[in-house]
Amino acid sequence: MSETLLSSRNLAFELYEVLDAEALTQRERFADHNRETFDAALSTARGIAEELFAPHNRKNDENEPQYVDGGAVLIPEVKPAVDAFNEAGFQNASRSFEQGGMQLPHLLSRACFAHFQSANIATSSYPMLSMGASHLIETFGSDEQKRLFLQPMIDARFFGTMALTEPHAGSSLADIRTRAEPAADGSYRIKGNKIFISGGDHPLSENIVHMVLAKLPDAPPGVKGISLFIVPKFLVNDDGSLGARNDVTLAGLFHKMGWRGTTSTALNFGDKGECVGYLVGKPHQGLAYMFQMMNEARIGVGMGAIMLGYAGYLYSLEYARERPQGRPVDAKDPTSAPVSIVQHTDVKRMLLTQKAYVEGAFDLGLYASRLVDDCETLPTEEERKQAHELLDLLTPIVKSWPSEFCLKANELAIQILGGHGYTREYPVEQYYRDNRLNPIHEGTHGIQSLDLLGRKLAQNNGAGLKQLTRLINQCCERASAHPSLDKLREPLEQLMARLSATTLSLLGDLMQGRVAQGLANSALYLKVFGHAVIGWRWLEQAIRAEEGLARGNAADADFYHGKLQAARYFLTWEVPSCHHDLALLEARDDTCSTMQDAWF
Amino acid sequence: MSETLLSSRNLAFELYEVLDAEALTQRERFADHNRETFDAALSTARGIAEELFAPHNRKNDENEPQYVDGGAVLIPEVKPAVDAFNEAGFQNASRSFEQGGMQLPHLLSRACFAHFQSANIATSSYPMLSMGASHLIETFGSDEQKRLFLQPMIDARFFGTMALTEPHAGSSLADIRTRAEPAADGSYRIKGNKIFISGGDHPLSENIVHMVLAKLPDAPPGVKGISLFIVPKFLVNDDGSLGARNDVTLAGLFHKMGWRGTTSTALNFGDKGECVGYLVGKPHQGLAYMFQMMNEARIGVGMGAIMLGYAGYLYSLEYARERPQGRPVDAKDPTSAPVSIVQHTDVKRMLLTQKAYVEGAFDLGLYASRLVDDCETLPTEEERKQAHELLDLLTPIVKSWPSEFCLKANELAIQILGGHGYTREYPVEQYYRDNRLNPIHEGTHGIQSLDLLGRKLAQNNGAGLKQLTRLINQCCERASAHPSLDKLREPLEQLMARLSATTLSLLGDLMQGRVAQGLANSALYLKVFGHAVIGWRWLEQAIRAEEGLARGNAADADFYHGKLQAARYFLTWEVPSCHHDLALLEARDDTCSTMQDAWF
Repeated sequence: MSETLLSSRNLAFELYEVLDAEALTQRERFADHNRETFDAALSTARGIAEELFAPHNRKNDENEPQYVDGGAVLIPEVKPAVDAFNEAGFQNASRSFEQGGMQLPHLLSRACFAHFQSANIATSSYPMLSMGASHLIETFGSDEQKRLFLQPMIDARFFGTMALTEPHAGSSLADIRTRAEPAADGSYRIKGNKIFISGGDHPLSENIVHMVLAKLPDAPPGVKGISLFIVPKFLVNDDGSLGARNDVTLAGLFHKMGWRGTTSTALNFGDKGECVGYLVGKPHQGLAYMFQMMNEARIGVGMGAIMLGYAGYLYSLEYARERPQGRPVDAKDPTSAPVSIVQHTDVKRMLLTQKAYVEGAFDLGLYASRLVDDCETLPTEEERKQAHELLDLLTPIVKSWPSEFCLKANELAIQILGGHGYTREYPVEQYYRDNRLNPIHEGTHGIQSLDLLGRKLAQNNGAGLKQLTRLINQCCERASAHPSLDKLREPLEQLMARLSATTLSLLGDLMQGRVAQGLANSALYLKVFGHAVIGWRWLEQAIRAEEGLARGNAADADFYHGKLQAARYFLTWEVPSCHHDLALLEARDDTCSTMQDAWF
Repeated sequence: MSETLLSSRNLAFELYEVLDAEALTQRERFADHNRETFDAALSTARGIAEELFAPHNRKNDENEPQYVDGGAVLIPEVKPAVDAFNEAGFQNASRSFEQGGMQLPHLLSRACFAHFQSANIATSSYPMLSMGASHLIETFGSDEQKRLFLQPMIDARFFGTMALTEPHAGSSLADIRTRAEPAADGSYRIKGNKIFISGGDHPLSENIVHMVLAKLPDAPPGVKGISLFIVPKFLVNDDGSLGARNDVTLAGLFHKMGWRGTTSTALNFGDKGECVGYLVGKPHQGLAYMFQMMNEARIGVGMGAIMLGYAGYLYSLEYARERPQGRPVDAKDPTSAPVSIVQHTDVKRMLLTQKAYVEGAFDLGLYASRLVDDCETLPTEEERKQAHELLDLLTPIVKSWPSEFCLKANELAIQILGGHGYTREYPVEQYYRDNRLNPIHEGTHGIQSLDLLGRKLAQNNGAGLKQLTRLINQCCERASAHPSLDKLREPLEQLMARLSATTLSLLGDLMQGRVAQGLANSALYLKVFGHAVIGWRWLEQAIRAEEGLARGNAADADFYHGKLQAARYFLTWEVPSCHHDLALLEARDDTCSTMQDAWF
C-alpha cells in the first residue's frame, strides 16, 4: 500500500489505539458499524484519492482555472475525481442512512477526507465547500429550502459556496455592504460584490448554491445586522428543475501563489438588479449561523494544513532514505561511500521536526473530529454540552496551529531536498505554496488569537478551559505511571502551571476593562496555548506507544520508538521554548502596542 | 523619492551614522571619494533599479526562460537592464580606476547593488554571478587568462558562471565526477554534467565563461583532488576574437518555485569529447580557490535575502497604512469608521518583526561588506589579517541568518496583506517564493552550521571569535552610558556570557574527538550565534539612535524612535528565546542524533 498520502499505520494507531474509534460503535447511531466497515471506508477513500486525485495534483497547479465566456474552465481531470468521490458517498459520509449517507462518525469521515486533502488539496476543496454550505441549509433552512437546494446538494447535483468576503471587508465582516431588498414574492433582491469566493464558479455541477452574507434595509449596524441568504447560480423551479440563470456573474478569477486548482472568484450579485436570494432562518442572524458552522470549516482548514504537511513529510522522508550524499561528520576516510542523507543528524532533525508537527497536529485534528461526534451522540445533554464547550475552545488551535507549523514542516521538506526541492519537478514546493493559504482563510491567525483569548477562554464561565486543564492533568497523571516518560511529562506540567496562571491574569485584564492590554500579545498566547495542546496530544501518544511496546509485538517496536522520539522532540525541544513567550505575556510587554505608525 | 526598494533614510543611517563610510575616504585607495561621490553612485543605482529592473520583476516571474534551439531565451527587458547596469559601471564598482572601475569601497558597491537585488533579484543575478566568476580569474588566473577572459568580463562582453553542483553531488563536492584530461596543447578536455548552474545560458553577452570544478586524472580522493577550470561557451582566439563553439551544451532548464527570471541550467561538458578547458592556478587547489571567493558569494546571497525581505517589509507597511479594516479591540461603537490596519497591535507586531529582521540583517550585511574593505585597505598587514578573521567567522551568519529570518519576514508581509497577499496580483508572494532559495544555494543552512561550529570558530586559534567577543563587549560598554538602553543591553550580555561558555565546551568536544556529539545540534548553535550577532548590531544601532536623538533634530526623531523600538523588539522578544536553545546545546541533547531511520 502506498504511503505517500498518510501513514496507514499511524492512522490505525490514531483511530484504534489513541482515539478508540471502536467505542463509538457502542452508540446507537453507529451501531451498524465496526472496525471492518470503518477500514473499508478508509480503503475506498485511499483508493480514489490515489487513483483519481493525486495524479492531477501537479496538473491542477500548472493549469489554473481559466475565465472563458463568463465561466470558469477547469482541467478535465477534476470532474471525474469529484464524481467518484460523490458516487462513493463521501459527500454524505456522516449523514444518516435515511438521507442516503454512510452514517459514519465524523472521526471516520474526517479520516477518509484526509486522504483527498493530502492527494490534491485543490480538487478536494470543491466537495469540502459544498459540504459546509449544505450543512448550513440543513441546520437553518426551511423545509422548502431543503427540498429545493439541500436535497440536490446531497445528491451532488448542486454544489455550494460560502460568500462572505468583500473588497473592503475581509476580517471585518461588520462592514459588508451587500444589500438584500425584500421583494413582493417573499424572496429578496441581492446587490453587492464578493471576492475570494472559492468554488464560486466551475463546471462540476448543474447548479451552484451560494450562501451569501448580506444586510437587510433595517439591519442594525455591525455584526448584528448581517443576514444569510441562499443565492443560486440558476433559479430552481418548484418541481426541482433548473430555471433561468440568476443575476450572479463571475467578475473574474484571482491568481494565487498556490492552491491553484480551486477557483477563487470575484462574484457580482445583482448587476442588473435581478439577483434573487432567499433568507435563511431569521433576519440579522447570519453571522451567528455562520459561526455555528465555523467549527466544521476551521477543522477542515486545519486538516488541510496537516495533510499538506504530512504529504511533504512522507515525500522528504522517502527522498532522504534514497539520496546518498556526504559522510558522517566524524568520518575519517574521504573515499568511503556516501551515506543516505537520512543518516545525517541535521537531516534527522528536519525529519523529526516534521514528524512531530504533522503527527501531533493530525492527532489533534482527529481528536477534534471525535469531539464533533461527542457533541452529537453522547448520551446526555450535559455530556454533549461539555463536548461542545471543549470543541469551541480547541477550534482556533485546530485551525491555526497546523496552519503555522505544518507550513514550517513543508519548509523543512524543501530544505531536505535542497536544490531539487526548490524546483517544480518535485512536489514539495507545491505543498509549501498551497499551505501558505491556510493561515489566511477562514479567519486569519490574528483573528484566531483574538477568538481564543478574547472569546473562547471565558465562554460559559471558562467551562471549556476547565475541562481541558482537567484532561491534560489526567493525561500527566497517567503518564506518571511510566517513569520512562518523566522527562516528557515534566515540561508539559511546568508549562501548564505557568500558562494557567497567565491565563487567569489575562482574563482578569479583559474582565476589568483593560481589553487592549489583555489582548495586545494574543499572538504569543495563541502559540503557547497551541504548544500546550499539542504537547498534551504528544504525551497521550507517548503513553499509547509505551503501552504498545509493553504488548511486545516486535513488528511494531520501530513504530512505537518513533512515536516516543517524536514526543520527546516536541516536549523537550518545543514546549519549553514557550516560557519566554509567557514571560512577555506576564510582563504585559508593550513593545508592539506602543509602536507608532510614524516610527516605521 | 520612492521608498519601495529600501529606505534611503535607513541607508544613510547605516553608511554615515553606524558604519562611518566617510572615514574610508581617509584611506589612500578611496582618497578621491567623498560623501557626494558615494551618494551620486547610490542615486544612479537607485534610478536604474527603479526604471529598468523593478518594472519587469513580475514579468520575469511569469515568463521564465525558455529552452529554444539549444539555448535559453529571456524576456526582452532583461538585456537593456543589465546593459544599463554595466554601462553605469556597477559591474566594476569596486575595481580600480586603472581597470576602468569606480574604485568604490565594497561597502558602497554592496549598497548600490542592494537596490538591484530589491528591485529584481533574478535579473540582478546575471551580473552578480559574472562578478564572482571574474574575481576568481582576477585572483588566481594567469596573465594570459586575464587578457583573454577577465578583460572581456570587465568590459561586460563576457559573463561568467560558477559550475560546481552535479546530479549526485551538491553539498558533497568531494564526490564530483567531472573529469579533466590534459591535452597536447596544454589545455584540458572536460567531461561531465553540472546542474543548477545559474546563468548557465542566456543571450546577454557574447560569451559565457564557466568556472568549472573538475578532477584531474591523478587527483587525490576527496576535496583535495578538485581543480578549477575556465570553460568558455565559445573558444577565444589569441587576438581576443571569438572562435568556435566549445563542446558545452545546454541540456535543459530547471523550473523553480521562484527566482524564475534567472536561468537554472543543466550543462553537459564534452558530450563529443571536445570540451576545452583551461586550468586556473595549480592542480587540486580548486576548492581552496572557491572557498577564498566564498565570502563574496555568501555575502551576496545574504544581501539578496535581506533585500527581498526589505522589499516585502516596505510594501506591507505601505499597504497597512492605506488599508482600512476593523476597529481597535477595545472600540465600543460598531458604527465607528474602520481604522488603517497599521493601528492594530498584531499588525504592528508583524511590521516590527519584519523591521527588526530586515534592518538588523541589512546592518550586518553592510558591516560585513565594510570588513571586505578592511581586509584590503587597512594600513597594516596585522589589521588586514584581523579583518579577515572576523569576516571569515561572520560569513556563515551573513549568509544563513537573513536566509531564514528575512524569509520569515516575507511570510509576515503576505499575512499583513491577507487574501490579497496570497495572490499574484500583489508582489509579496513572489518575494516569498524568491527568498525560499536562499537557505539552499551557496551552501545550505546545514552546511553553514557545520562551517561555523566545525571550522570557523576554532580557526587561527579562535582569533575571529575573540575579536567578535571583544567588539560585542565594547558595544555593551558604550551602551551602558545610556541608561535608557539598559533593558536592551542586559539580554545581550546574558546571552553572550552563556554562549561563550557553551562555545568553549563544544569546541572542547571537537578538539577531543567527540566530533559527532559536538556537531549534533549545530543548527541550534547557528541560530543562537546569529541572534547574538544581530542583537549586537541592533544594540549598536540603538546607541546611534540615542546619539541621533540627543542631537535634537526634530525631523529625525520618528526615525530614531523606530530604531529604538525595533532594537527593543529584537533584544527583548528574540534574543532571550535563545536560552532554551543553549540549554539543549549544553545538555548535548541527543534527541535528533539517536533517532533511527527505521523509527520514522
